[in-house]
Amino acid sequence: MPFVTFEGIDGCGKSTLLESLGQHLLGQGLTVQKTREPGGSELGKDLRQILLRTSGEPPCPEAELLIYEADRAQHVQTKIRPWLESGAWVLSDRFFDSSTAFQGAGRKIAQEHVTWLNQFATGSLKPDCTVLIDVPVEVSQQRRKNRRHDRLENEDNTFHESVRRAYLELSKREPKRFFVLDGTKSPQHLTTLLIEELKSRGLLK
Amino acid sequence: MPFVTFEGIDGCGKSTLLESLGQHLLGQGLTVQKTREPGGSELGKDLRQILLRTSGEPPCPEAELLIYEADRAQHVQTKIRPWLESGAWVLSDRFFDSSTAFQGAGRKIAQEHVTWLNQFATGSLKPDCTVLIDVPVEVSQQRRKNRRHDRLENEDNTFHESVRRAYLELSKREPKRFFVLDGTKSPQHLTTLLIEELKSRGLLK
Repeated sequence: MPFVTFEGIDGCGKSTLLESLGQHLLGQGLTVQKTREPGGSELGKDLRQILLRTSGEPPCPEAELLIYEADRAQHVQTKIRPWLESGAWVLSDRFFDSSTAFQGAGRKIAQEHVTWLNQFATGSLKPDCTVLIDVPVEVSQQRRKNRRHDRLENEDNTFHESVRRAYLELSKREPKRFFVLDGTKSPQHLTTLLIEELKSRGLLK
Repeated sequence: MPFVTFEGIDGCGKSTLLESLGQHLLGQGLTVQKTREPGGSELGKDLRQILLRTSGEPPCPEAELLIYEADRAQHVQTKIRPWLESGAWVLSDRFFDSSTAFQGAGRKIAQEHVTWLNQFATGSLKPDCTVLIDVPVEVSQQRRKNRRHDRLENEDNTFHESVRRAYLELSKREPKRFFVLDGTKSPQHLTTLLIEELKSRGLLK
């Protein structure tokens, strides 16, 4: 069954679009599993807390990446693969492209190292479609103004600009896997475009 | 300054020998930092708890290895390298050979993957001397009988036999770095042999 991941900087509208696609699929009588990284597995909930807390000793960039990959390995083995095998659509708020963008471009860890770790953690599982919702950093900031920020959201604009650019580069490198949406458009419009795209890719009837 | 690591199956006598070498070095007026993996850094204490607890969802082998390597990356960057640069002797109860033996041989993760991760996490830092205390699995079991067991100690004998064999193979592959001791001998005797060895290697006057 299809595995669809949602990517972009924080505040781009991933969660809203994931929810509305999930609703649409349920309406078609399909089985849907909605999940996220970090924190998609039982073990992952503890790792998520360590990764996103704003107190305590922050992990160095390499430790941060390794904890994300541990979360991912557990998520793939205990949740995503079993769900796909059971015939469910799996929609994940973030997957390995987040590590390429945030820990690779954001934290300046060499891309070939992040790629190696992504493959090791996932056993080379790839999404059938990765939805990248692109928004300017200022828009994302404006939207997140009234939210409580986690440790990565607290990074400065240069960090988030690097992450945004890295995502756009990734989408150009793998145009067949990525589907890029303009996150300044309305949620309804984005949902319609995504459903059309999934149909044109033959993933949805 | 020298970086000395202590390896072997649980109950082999690592901690006792590390303590007595530490005492000897302090008696020589040297600065000594004693540490351990997992849990050598502030962040590592939280990771140690996740790794060794016997409740909650256990990590899959890949996630387990990745969490050990995250602990190691933080340990090297925030503790071991600064200590060595400040002129201290660093004595660590376990280091990357533990991952090669426990997660590689014990959990059957390909050796080249463990080696890659060890190098990534440590930035290729290697101990000047690695003390392997070899004991038969039955001896280690007898010694651990009255201790509270952690998640890895709870593994069966086949697991611990594989780990012991892997350590001995490692010591043959790098005879200059490893110093193998017979852990069934008395702690006093082992301490004397280790001090002699460090002198003969020119690490200690």
